[in-house]
Order: sequence, then structure tokens, then C-alpha cells
Amino acid sequence: MSEPQNPPIEDVDGSKGPTKSELKKQAKAAEKAKKAAEKAAKQKELEAQKAAAEPDYSADCYGAFPLNQSQSRPRRERIQLASLSNRDGETALFRARVHTSRAQGSKMVFLNLRQGTESVQALAVVTPEKISKQMVKWIASLADESIVLVEGVVHKSPEPIKSATVSDVEVHITKVHLISGVEGRLPFSLDDASRPETEVEASDVQFNRVLLDTRLSNRVIDLRTQTNHAIFRLQAGIGELFREYLHANRFTEIHSPKLQGAATESGASVFKVGYFKGNAYLAQSPQLAKQMVIAADFERVYEIGPVFRAEDSNTHRHMTEFVGLDLEMVIEEHYHEVLELLDGLFLHIFRGLRDRYKREIEVVRLQFPADEFKWREGPEGTLKLTFKEAVNLLVEDGVSREELDDIDTTNEKRLGRIVRAKYDTDYFIIDKFPMALRPFYTMPDPEDPTISNSYDFFMRGEEILSGAQRIHDSQFLCEKMRSKGVDPESMRDYVNAFRMGCPPHGGGGIGLERVLMLFLKLNNIRRASLFPRDPKRLEP
Amino acid sequence: MSEPQNPPIEDVDGSKGPTKSELKKQAKAAEKAKKAAEKAAKQKELEAQKAAAEPDYSADCYGAFPLNQSQSRPRRERIQLASLSNRDGETALFRARVHTSRAQGSKMVFLNLRQGTESVQALAVVTPEKISKQMVKWIASLADESIVLVEGVVHKSPEPIKSATVSDVEVHITKVHLISGVEGRLPFSLDDASRPETEVEASDVQFNRVLLDTRLSNRVIDLRTQTNHAIFRLQAGIGELFREYLHANRFTEIHSPKLQGAATESGASVFKVGYFKGNAYLAQSPQLAKQMVIAADFERVYEIGPVFRAEDSNTHRHMTEFVGLDLEMVIEEHYHEVLELLDGLFLHIFRGLRDRYKREIEVVRLQFPADEFKWREGPEGTLKLTFKEAVNLLVEDGVSREELDDIDTTNEKRLGRIVRAKYDTDYFIIDKFPMALRPFYTMPDPEDPTISNSYDFFMRGEEILSGAQRIHDSQFLCEKMRSKGVDPESMRDYVNAFRMGCPPHGGGGIGLERVLMLFLKLNNIRRASLFPRDPKRLEP
Repeated sequence: MSEPQNPPIEDVDGSKGPTKSELKKQAKAAEKAKKAAEKAAKQKELEAQKAAAEPDYSADCYGAFPLNQSQSRPRRERIQLASLSNRDGETALFRARVHTSRAQGSKMVFLNLRQGTESVQALAVVTPEKISKQMVKWIASLADESIVLVEGVVHKSPEPIKSATVSDVEVHITKVHLISGVEGRLPFSLDDASRPETEVEASDVQFNRVLLDTRLSNRVIDLRTQTNHAIFRLQAGIGELFREYLHANRFTEIHSPKLQGAATESGASVFKVGYFKGNAYLAQSPQLAKQMVIAADFERVYEIGPVFRAEDSNTHRHMTEFVGLDLEMVIEEHYHEVLELLDGLFLHIFRGLRDRYKREIEVVRLQFPADEFKWREGPEGTLKLTFKEAVNLLVEDGVSREELDDIDTTNEKRLGRIVRAKYDTDYFIIDKFPMALRPFYTMPDPEDPTISNSYDFFMRGEEILSGAQRIHDSQFLCEKMRSKGVDPESMRDYVNAFRMGCPPHGGGGIGLERVLMLFLKLNNIRRASLFPRDPKRLEP
Repeated sequence: MSEPQNPPIEDVDGSKGPTKSELKKQAKAAEKAKKAAEKAAKQKELEAQKAAAEPDYSADCYGAFPLNQSQSRPRRERIQLASLSNRDGETALFRARVHTSRAQGSKMVFLNLRQGTESVQALAVVTPEKISKQMVKWIASLADESIVLVEGVVHKSPEPIKSATVSDVEVHITKVHLISGVEGRLPFSLDDASRPETEVEASDVQFNRVLLDTRLSNRVIDLRTQTNHAIFRLQAGIGELFREYLHANRFTEIHSPKLQGAATESGASVFKVGYFKGNAYLAQSPQLAKQMVIAADFERVYEIGPVFRAEDSNTHRHMTEFVGLDLEMVIEEHYHEVLELLDGLFLHIFRGLRDRYKREIEVVRLQFPADEFKWREGPEGTLKLTFKEAVNLLVEDGVSREELDDIDTTNEKRLGRIVRAKYDTDYFIIDKFPMALRPFYTMPDPEDPTISNSYDFFMRGEEILSGAQRIHDSQFLCEKMRSKGVDPESMRDYVNAFRMGCPPHGGGGIGLERVLMLFLKLNNIRRASLFPRDPKRLEP
């Protein structure tokens, strides 16, 4: 890994002794000799290291390895469980967790070995001169969730092994070593944590129910379930599909600062940060920054990043920190250009999840049974209602019009059910919200100033995106700010961005975890976040 | 945009009146009539809207449009300047900024029109019954940075137009309308902001020098330069290349919380946040979270997100918030698996920037002249030095060994120069840092506990990545924590993650803005951040 070094050439005054070219020759020879010596030493050292440190497979067939501090590098391939099916008759080496172990008498032990979303059955049987009784005993003593390095021969299984995802083979263990053990008791078993929600509800007595709070307090263990591995691959998938679509549509990714000099948008729900001798505030969204880069001619931008909401609400769908998928783009003629792009984006995400993550969706369904998420394909396109039309649907369904100045969470859910029954879709758009319900930077409708050029997108009756055309004219913006009680001077940089010319633009912000929760019907947003944050939870 | 609604069917008691099938028929007929009426009304409304709101190109050839509130949607294509070269003889419609305007007498005006990194020359000449003297006067009066909608005929230019990037054509204006004007004076001209740094240095008198601080205080204007557009496309490019390489290597993207319950890693440089009735702290890096998901069997993960450093240093290379490109992966045999993956990642980024962003790099070079960034290709691979070897190189170069317990910024720079001269590369790795210089979670070398399995990566003599093998054994970790004065109880969840079995692992964190700054030699990290944050700057 290291480079040969030139030996330092000793100082000569040049008046006496060897000539320059002689000196060079000498230096070269010395260098060569040194290199050779170094090489030999290195070789020797390497061999010594290897001999001393490499776990010797031939001597012991089992036992704990010394702590891996990178003592050696035998470069022996370790395979993925998923590839075992194709290795009938081969010897395979792999790292896995002991999911469960089950001794059968004193001569045989079965292991269910797990690797991410895959698992396989392995067994060790006492065999003269190969596998001792002690070895079987030691294997049977391994705690669940220990990490082991296993060498074994792959055998086709006569019948499918139901308990394993790689069900057509089993591994006959020849060697097994402990890489990392378990200290103390697990807070819950992975099997209990993986049970279908319905099964648990139906039978509280038979199974240990693992409550969400217990899971979150021991999130590292909880995250090991196959369900959670699938959920977070899907989370990454949504991000990837989001970027993919926007790249194809000439968007540039940006990164805007989360530390802000002033409490922006609406002062109430912003976290305050101690900033050297003063204060800063955590951005509620990249709203201001992304509009400012539109004023800087970036044309179409998106950002994926944390957004912070200091709202003291402990609902199934609120967190104090979540991942925002935000975008903003120039409007040429009409804000429906934005609305249509966002619709195309969601269709790309839905189709991509369905087509590329079939396996993951199936895995999640096992624990969280749900109707498949439905959207409209074909020429009719996505269902788009105006706010007024949405209100009418609710009124027809029996909601009193008086309570429908806004559509609250309960009525949103109800609307979702109405729409599903009537239009057979879990995904729809509400356009043209009343101006009173939207922030000051929202562009009013040209015909009716009480209505705005804004929209929400819904999945299974819950809002997942909020967006609008923004006001790009600084004077009109200041007027609207004042009418909503915001002093334009308190947002000087933001207002100035529009003073120097800004094209018409619009955009929206998507809650990543909400999309994930609602696509899979996980029923609680915390299940869609690795380490969720709410007013009562800051750890782990 | 709206869906037809079924008329509500009136309640009937079923005992009298029309039969069910009659009722259905009536309802159907009523629905049909209503739909037809709605359609007619909508059509009428649309036509009225169009007539009232659409800027009428035929009536006036110039003037300010009414504020775009999405009055209409003529669906007329607006083109990108870059495509003008292929439209000789065509009429083109496009939106652009007035970069500069120059009247020639009262009958002719030249505009330099800008769109992102592209620009084109346009001109208007008084022509009977087509372009009036008033129109030319009005065009000449447009402020620089106004946004206009231009219609014109594309003409091949007899000779290249030096002032425009689309230099082979010019646009003969037929119509021009103001979309967004400029209020007040620009803080500096875009031309002044775009001048090569060397040119400015050579001639302070002739040009207005735009200082970095002035730029940052008026960042929206500053970001409009072609240089900045190119810089932030390159920034997005680095992120894309990072993800691309890691996806191909089976990494999953994660999002870890920035709000933490305790001041982690090292208490001194963490921002404190008011969190309801208590406090939270901003994550200094996703270090703990990404290790915890490794303990949850995620195998290989990466994150792109903000990291926060409460360090009161105002150097050219520090910010209080920057974008971290972080990754963590399981080690099978040796931590050099991680080091080699990271090296492969950087080569992928360098090659990708060189091959896909040639134009952008050239644009930046015009303002920030620099030697091309060099790395080693071919079988010899990237230069890897041990810390000891790096120290020896510095000592050979005349630095006293006593001051080399650590290599400070000055000596890093010096080492960069030595390495460039000796090995012809701007990119290299230093491996095996002294344990004393690394955080408690760093894995010591198996042979020498004063040395660690850790590494830094360098570009042009500045650190851009720091990483290591981490301690995955909880007891050993607690021992190291105590020896560095950290109470394991204060990081209970983190330590617990390893108690339940964790594979050996390692990773690293890259500073996105540093990579961008050093690849392009921008000399100040603030130039590589959209809206930089330092102890003295929280706005805009």
C-alpha cells in the first residue's frame, strides 16, 4: 500500500569527492538496494502477520475469532445468501446472523441464518473426525442475533424449507466461527417483531405483542426485521425515482442551508438554535431558498433534505423532522405546467415502485396487509378536483357545508373514501384552494382573489404534497405580506430577490415518509422513518 | 381540469312514484344534460378568459405584460437559447434576461440576452409598419436584468458574435414584452461579477472589483453569472456521480435525523436547539446513525445531508453548515476494502466530471484560472502514503520532525506541493493516522495500539475525506470511550447497538463543497455553497 521512498541525498559542497553523475549513480544503487530490502522486509512482515492473525480454518472448525482489527486479508470470497440456490454441491463461505438455533438431541443442530431480507437453513451433525460433539454443543449455544462466519456444503433440499427465504437448499456446516456475539438479553425476538399485525391483533395471548414505542426505543433491533429492510429499500427507491424523473426533466439538485438568520414563513413553529453569541432558526422548508435560486435563473431545481417543524402534535402523521422532497420551476404560461409535472412525477414513482420493488412490497404486505395502492392510468389521467368540487362531494356525502371552510383531517379521510368508491383511485389532486388557507407567497387566482393558484396532492385520503404558483412580483408580494401581518423588512433578502427581476414560478414539497407510509399503509409515519423524531422522542 | 359530478339522486321512499329503473333513466338524462351545459359553460368561460387575459401578440409588438397569474395557456412553445443555432430563418419565441442593451442612434438597439449559461445577440431596427421608433426607444429603456419574452427571426451571423455564447446567429426582434422588471439599482453588474480573477487583480482601476462579501450579501444576483451556474451544475454532478457509484456497489441511501437528544461525538462544537421544554443538538455528522444501521444489518449505506459544526473559525475552508457525503459499510476481512471502495468512488467522480462536465469546467476556468486537477490513472493506482511516510516526506523537505505530531493545514498544503512535484498527482491518500488524532470510535491497528486503521483523502493538499474502521465491539468501545473521557452511559443507545451483535465496519465522510472548491480551485469554500453559513453569516 505504501510508496517506495527516495533516500535523502546527503549534502555535498561540490568542491571535492564524487562528481554529480557519480553521486547520482550511487544514489540510484542505494535506492535500489533499499527498495529490495524494504520489499523483502515487507514480504516477511506480511507473512508473519498472516500467520499470526489469520483465523486458521484448517486447525479449528469452530470457536470465536479474535476481534477483527484487520489483521489479515486472505481475500476469500464471502457470498450472499441469495446466490446459494445456484451452488448445489459447492462449498460456500458466508457471514450471517443466527436468527434461531434448535438442537436435536446432542448430535444435531439446526440454524436459521439471516442476511438482510434473506435467510437459509443450516445444520451441523456429529461426524467422526469432522464435526465433534463439542462443536455441535457450541453451535447450539450461540445466542440468537450472534454474527457468524459459516463454511458449509450446499445441498438441494428434498422439500421446500418454509422457514427460510432461500428455501430450495440447506447448508451442511463444516466450520463456523463467531464474529460478533450478543451481550445480555434481546428486548424482543425478531420473530415477534415480524408478525403480521392482524395475527397479533387476533391473538394477544399466544404471541408477544411488540408495541411501537418498544420498537422505537430499541430501533436497531427492530430495524433488522425483513419488513423494515424492505421498507427502507422502498424509501431509498422513492428518492431515486424522484431524482430520476426530475433529471430527465432538466432539474438541477440544490442544497440550501437549514440554519437561517430569521424565523421565516410563520414564526410559531420554528426551532431556535443558539448560534455563537446570537440565534439562528431551523428552516421549516427550503421554500425561500429555492425561490431565491429561481430568481437567480436556475430555472428548475429540486432538493432532498431534512425539514424541521416545531409543532407540538403527536399524531400518526406528524414528526418534528422529516425528509422533504422539494422542487421549484419557472412557469412559462400557466401554473398547471407545474401541477402536471408533479402529477407525472408521482405516476413515475408509483409505477417505479410497482415494477422495481415487487419483492419488497410483498415482504411488507406480510406484516402490514393492505389493499394495493390504486391510481388511474390511461387517457382519463389523474383525478383533479377543485377545492369547491371536493367540498361538494363531502356535502353530498352528508357533511355540513358550514364546517367546510377548510377540509380537516377527518374530512380528508372521508373524501379519500368517497373518491375511492366513486373513481376507484387512491391518488388525486385538489386544485384552487381558498387564499385564506395558504401562505402569503401564494399567487391568487386572476379572476377571484379569494381563490389561489394552489393545490394539494392526496394518497389514501391524506395530504402528501402542498404546492402553488408563487408571487414573483415584489410589490404585490409586500402587499400580501402586510395583509397577512408579515413585515417585508423582516424578510429583506427574500423580497430583494424579486426586486431584481424574477420569472413566474411554482413548485411543491413532498413528505417522503408520508408517501412511503401511505403507499404501504403502515398507519404510523414513525414506521417510515429510520429514527423518528416527535415532541416526545429524540432518541435513539 | 375538473371531473363531471353525478347529480345527487333525491331520496325516495320506494312505496310510490317512479320505479327504480325509471329513476335511473331520469338521473342519467339529467346527468347528460348537466354535463352538456357544464361543457358549454366551460368552453364559453375559457374563451372569455383567453380573450380577456392572453397577451395579444398581434395588437402590440411591445410593452409590459400584466402580472402572470396564469390567466391563460396559449401553449406556444418557448425555446432554449442553445437551440437557436439550428433555427436559421425560423421565428422563435423565448424568455430571457436583458444582460445588456445598447442603442445605436434612435433607430436601432442591440440586446445581449441571457438564459442560464447561454446568451445571444438580438436587435431591433425601425421598420415601417412593423417596428416603430417608440418601440426601439422602449426596448433601449429596458433595465439590465429585466426578464423579457422575445419573438424574432433567427439569422445566421456573417461573423461570430464574441459577446454571446450562441455566436453564430442573431435574432431580429419582431415583438418584445416585459415579464418582470427591475426595481432600483443592481448592487453590481453581472459583467463585473464575471470578470476573471486575474484580470481584476491586474487592474483594480479599470474594473469594479466585486468583493466576495458583497457577492454573498447579494447572492441572488451573484448566482446569476455563467460561472456560478456552471459551479452549481458541477456541484449537482458530484452528488449524482457519488450516488451512481454507490448504487452500482449495492449501497442503500438513508436519511438520519439531524436533531439529537445529546451532544455527541465531542461536546464542544455542537449547536444547541430549544426543543419544546428541553434541548436538542444538531448532528455533527451522521456518524452514530449510520453505524447503528450497520448494526441493524443494512450492510452498505450512504447519506447526503447537512452537517453542522459550531466551530468559531472563519477560514477559507470552514463553514458552520455544509453538505456531507457519508457512507458506511461492513468489512469482511480488512478495512482496506473500505479505503479501496472510497478510492474507486473518487476516481469515478473525477472521471465523471472530466467527461460529462467539460463545458462547465471551461466556463469556470474563465473566471478562476487553474491548473487542471490531476490524478493517477493506470496500474500504479492512487498514491497511498502512511502517516509516517507523509511525515518523512515533510522532514526531507525541511520541516522539523518535532512539529509533526499532527500535520497542520500549512504542512498539509506543503505536502500537497511535495507530492505534486514528486508523483504528479493532486489526489492522494494518507493511511494509518496516530490513534491520538482520531475519535474514540476508531479501530486501533492490531500490531500497534498507538496507530489506527484510519485514513484521510486529499485534493490539492487539503483534506476532503476522513474515515476509518470503527470499533464494533461494545466492551472495547466502552474502554476507549472512558480513556478519551466520554461516559458510555451518555451514549447509551449507540453503545447498545453494538451489544446486540455488530459486524466489523468502516466508512468515511466527504465534504461536498470542499471537493467542488478544490477540483475547480475556487480558493474559498463559500464559492462552492449556494448560501454559505459561517460564524458571521446567516443570510441570505
